[in-house]
Amino acid sequence: MLKNDRFLRALLREPVDVTPVWMMRQAGRYLPEYRATRKQAGDFLTLCKTPELACEVTLQPLRRYPFDAAILFSDILTIPDAFGQGLYFSEGEGPKFRKLIRTAADVEQLPDISVASELSYVTDAVSLIRRELNGAVPLIGFSGSPWTLATYMIEGGSSKDFRIAKQFLYDQPEAMHLLLQKLAAAVTDYLNAQIEAGAQAVQIFDTWGGILTTASYQSFSLAYMQSIVAKLIKEHEGRKIPVIVFTKNGGQWLESIVATGCQAVGLDWIVDIGEARNRIGNSVALQGNMDPSILYASPQAIRKEVGAILSSFGAGNGHVFNLGHGITPEVNPDHVTAFVAAVHELSAPYHS
Amino acid sequence: MLKNDRFLRALLREPVDVTPVWMMRQAGRYLPEYRATRKQAGDFLTLCKTPELACEVTLQPLRRYPFDAAILFSDILTIPDAFGQGLYFSEGEGPKFRKLIRTAADVEQLPDISVASELSYVTDAVSLIRRELNGAVPLIGFSGSPWTLATYMIEGGSSKDFRIAKQFLYDQPEAMHLLLQKLAAAVTDYLNAQIEAGAQAVQIFDTWGGILTTASYQSFSLAYMQSIVAKLIKEHEGRKIPVIVFTKNGGQWLESIVATGCQAVGLDWIVDIGEARNRIGNSVALQGNMDPSILYASPQAIRKEVGAILSSFGAGNGHVFNLGHGITPEVNPDHVTAFVAAVHELSAPYHS
Repeated sequence: MLKNDRFLRALLREPVDVTPVWMMRQAGRYLPEYRATRKQAGDFLTLCKTPELACEVTLQPLRRYPFDAAILFSDILTIPDAFGQGLYFSEGEGPKFRKLIRTAADVEQLPDISVASELSYVTDAVSLIRRELNGAVPLIGFSGSPWTLATYMIEGGSSKDFRIAKQFLYDQPEAMHLLLQKLAAAVTDYLNAQIEAGAQAVQIFDTWGGILTTASYQSFSLAYMQSIVAKLIKEHEGRKIPVIVFTKNGGQWLESIVATGCQAVGLDWIVDIGEARNRIGNSVALQGNMDPSILYASPQAIRKEVGAILSSFGAGNGHVFNLGHGITPEVNPDHVTAFVAAVHELSAPYHS
Repeated sequence: MLKNDRFLRALLREPVDVTPVWMMRQAGRYLPEYRATRKQAGDFLTLCKTPELACEVTLQPLRRYPFDAAILFSDILTIPDAFGQGLYFSEGEGPKFRKLIRTAADVEQLPDISVASELSYVTDAVSLIRRELNGAVPLIGFSGSPWTLATYMIEGGSSKDFRIAKQFLYDQPEAMHLLLQKLAAAVTDYLNAQIEAGAQAVQIFDTWGGILTTASYQSFSLAYMQSIVAKLIKEHEGRKIPVIVFTKNGGQWLESIVATGCQAVGLDWIVDIGEARNRIGNSVALQGNMDPSILYASPQAIRKEVGAILSSFGAGNGHVFNLGHGITPEVNPDHVTAFVAAVHELSAPYHS
């Protein structure tokens, strides 16, 4: 039994006492205890690949803040790593791959992988976190979207303009579709394995869908997320497993995102959540959407912005409070205290 | 008399024979002749501040390509430079300021400036370019939006997350509004001086409005652009002076952008131009919107994308073809030839 099921109830648009809240990247570098565990692990990939350490950093933010959900600590690039692309992290430069995808042959030569065995360190972490949480709050599993994973595999890491990935898309669309099919199959298996290991909701992070044209987004990102959502396990342990689809910078496409069949749409901060609710709030829950940069402002300014977002959403069910993107490393942890308290305190009147 | 007035006609939604086309940053580093002139100038600011050199690089792309408009070569940060902020360019790092705006006192201490005298090098360039163009195509003047200029003045240069500018906005909103008022007054004078010197249309570049929440965009960027549009010279030399407002990543706010009173809305590549036309195309012209990254793809792929955008817009008046953002330095100049030819050739059937 869950002691706090606000998060799952809100995702299913059921009544709650206060608006549930969690933060993307809540287990992260803004927390000194995270930095200590990462130092202990030696490097970032060891942290991800050691279930005990992944469990520890997953739980750290919950010891400080009354978040209504935990999210598995992992990296979005575990699947390309399992495909043998040689993921590594160079200090200050983010993720890198030793092998790159640049031709149709590179795509064809990707090995057949068994996600369950290659990524057992992830499912082991999920099981362990569930045990340690002991029903305090639900656990969220996640994956990057096929398009987002593909951009890293083609670019070889992060990118400013995604020039190489876009060139691949426009010059070799068939090879791109084959890559995305392989990734979509792996993401489906990966999320289902997380659900079977105990994840009680899952989120697909389409971090880079929002750099595409509308037409390319539909065929190269959204279509693959739709195929994944259709194949996910619908119920586990007697509960529905809600799916959250988050396309950063996807505010123009909310109606199409709903059409994937997801239970909730993640919103970045650019969207007005009240307008989003008018557009799609009768069919799905909404998750979001405070600009993470506002956490650098004063606690008073944070509280004011939380109030504005709650007021824009208005009374009723179906809101999970979150940031519009991940929290950044330089934020003062005390500002997160103010943020979470403001959500719980200021939202109560909207649920009476 | 203009030999080619397609661009101005399209902005006023009058009939044309083919869809006019120009490119943001068409006078730029992708052209070897630009790089040669810049080298000759010694540094970037000298290039901007020497009317003969600014005129030369403005005209260079028109010698290669049948563009339907010229755009004044200048930098968007001339106004902060005129305010005494000490603009300079460090190789590979973009623009920097020696003085920063960080407090209300910094804003209050900004000097009263006469744009006409401080920025006479710009109006001299406009007059010279008009003379040299000799009526071949119209000349576009431009300015950065107040919000966009403010971000550079506060951050001290380019930024990835605009953390300092946003912190200033949320913690010191009154000081931010005072800064934006001062900038809006200067932008108004600046654009009117360009019009009086011969600019036949003007564009406001709101490059960074699209990183704000909807509410902050409305009050900290759009409101100031609206006040500028209202005060611009409406007619000069017996012609209407169309105003183009371009907010990058502003696709969710097209209706509000129209409400500034502009004659045309610039679209980035994320928006579908047909959907934009359905939303706002009865009241303004649309400018855009090919993803500049597609210029890295093959000429065949470029032609296909041009065709898709023309088809999405459909038949009728009010389309100026452009990229969704500036052309980037590594593009092959031959691909621009293919791009411009595709626009002129493939658009003819839509205007018969």
